[in-house]
Amino acid sequence: MQKIERKRLSVADYRQGLRNHDTLILAQAITLVESQLANDQHLANELIQSILPLCGQSLRIGITGVPGVGKSTFIETFGTFLTQQNKKVAVLAIDPSSGKTKGSILGDKTRMEELAKNPFAFIRPTATGTALGGVANRTREAILLCEAAGFDVVIVETVGVGQSETMVRGMVDYFLLLMLAGAGDELQGIKKGIMEMADGVVVTKADGENHKRAIQAQADLQHALHLFQLAESGWTPTVSTSSALEKKGLEETWRMMEHYKNFTDQNGFFKANRQSQNNLWLEERFTLLWNSRLTDDKKFQAMKIDLQNKIAENKMTVRDAANLLLEVSKTLT
Amino acid sequence: MQKIERKRLSVADYRQGLRNHDTLILAQAITLVESQLANDQHLANELIQSILPLCGQSLRIGITGVPGVGKSTFIETFGTFLTQQNKKVAVLAIDPSSGKTKGSILGDKTRMEELAKNPFAFIRPTATGTALGGVANRTREAILLCEAAGFDVVIVETVGVGQSETMVRGMVDYFLLLMLAGAGDELQGIKKGIMEMADGVVVTKADGENHKRAIQAQADLQHALHLFQLAESGWTPTVSTSSALEKKGLEETWRMMEHYKNFTDQNGFFKANRQSQNNLWLEERFTLLWNSRLTDDKKFQAMKIDLQNKIAENKMTVRDAANLLLEVSKTLT
Repeated sequence: MQKIERKRLSVADYRQGLRNHDTLILAQAITLVESQLANDQHLANELIQSILPLCGQSLRIGITGVPGVGKSTFIETFGTFLTQQNKKVAVLAIDPSSGKTKGSILGDKTRMEELAKNPFAFIRPTATGTALGGVANRTREAILLCEAAGFDVVIVETVGVGQSETMVRGMVDYFLLLMLAGAGDELQGIKKGIMEMADGVVVTKADGENHKRAIQAQADLQHALHLFQLAESGWTPTVSTSSALEKKGLEETWRMMEHYKNFTDQNGFFKANRQSQNNLWLEERFTLLWNSRLTDDKKFQAMKIDLQNKIAENKMTVRDAANLLLEVSKTLT
Repeated sequence: MQKIERKRLSVADYRQGLRNHDTLILAQAITLVESQLANDQHLANELIQSILPLCGQSLRIGITGVPGVGKSTFIETFGTFLTQQNKKVAVLAIDPSSGKTKGSILGDKTRMEELAKNPFAFIRPTATGTALGGVANRTREAILLCEAAGFDVVIVETVGVGQSETMVRGMVDYFLLLMLAGAGDELQGIKKGIMEMADGVVVTKADGENHKRAIQAQADLQHALHLFQLAESGWTPTVSTSSALEKKGLEETWRMMEHYKNFTDQNGFFKANRQSQNNLWLEERFTLLWNSRLTDDKKFQAMKIDLQNKIAENKMTVRDAANLLLEVSKTLT
């Protein structure tokens, strides 16, 4: 692959491009906020600052589900449906592969092929190159950029490993769980705690022979979910079925989300949730900065290694060592 | 319940009591290290410091499994078996209930009743009153105290919620996963990533009609686990079956652990693992101290609230706010 030199744009260039709904500029802006270079970081911050008034108007949807549930297919079908309702749809997919293999989900050409060609849609993988903290920060900024570029719906897809659901739940308005009908216990295979995070469930592949089972699963789940009323939002999660094959259940699914939006707008949770998500983001970003400050300090690192050795030799307790580290951390310049 | 005034013991008293294998003193010492009072913390640190040379000789075993797998029953039966082999067994159970309800797993009298009365065993629940970070620290110190009191095997039971498996994995030598035979796919119901953490698996309730299925599950699992060779230790997890009802498979299970101990002693992983666990502990404790320092600082907290408000009003980016917080954190006294 040929490396293409990126033309150095100004904040005004980016801003104008976003206002013009230019997806090439949007893609470049996301690359900018993902960059670790000090110059880029500076520019990225200015850019985000300048677009803040344009942000916040989209519905941010997180989507999760076990492998095989048809996540990509659902997003493709549902996203296409939304564009037909005159909505602009951005999909941010957190891509676990690209960190290690430099591969990308978009390398897999069959994945969301239709949506990728749709002029009212934008698909972007976020590499998990570094720790999840960094990914969370970058994805949150990518959401803001998509909003500044006029997208009405921003879908964040989880990868279903580690803490990625919790991370995505912490940056979206609505968290959707995709499930398959059948296989006996509907709850099996779902990580503990995921069900409790969902604002809604879609039973996928509700077509052909599977249709009856999907309807049954929907009823069972709706019954079970009455136990899961979400304490903070006061919302009781709802369940729909969908078929990507027969393009069914998409409108119902969207209505479910609209109901949620109306309900939480009225009780104030929608806004309160975004605020507490921003507070969490601030905590995470501060911790990230603080940690890299410690990591970069040679005196602190040398001290830590010395203390680790003393602990290994049973000469010092972890309590004492931690207290000493705290004292050193206070003296860093 | 009546509150009993604890007699104030000196470090020398505690130390002597532990050396005499006095489980009442051991219980009090664990209460001491769990205490948040500044005086107690000081004494606790002195105590841990003084017993360090007595620590480290036990085999630390973490045990996890989904509800219904028979975890308590297994620990009771296996623990009793070990005491019959002249081993002293301590069980540290992380108790999720006691934080909220002030209840305790030992309030449930049927739980490990036999082992609780066994003079060569010691059972202690650790309340998860505060964040997991605090629990981890307290449980690690409880392990050290049990070792100082001469226990040969320290079992740490997980509660199977949130991050408790990862936490327990980070403080034990050997991590055991209990599973049930049958229910089709043996891997279902197990949280993703748990299987990859296990050094060994025991298929429980391998008795009566279930025996044949358990043997089949053992073979299937052993086959599957060849794919899971643990990168750091070089160990391939092994599988046994056990019946608490028929008291079978206990010796086999213990041999599995002994093999692991020998294997990792020889390749150096056993010692290296404990060291890296201590390093992790140091990180956690330092972070805990640092965080409470920030939480306690009024100037920092006021600044944070101000920044949160500016973010909520779209007047400031999270990047800028985090940078400002970092600057303030440097000036704390």
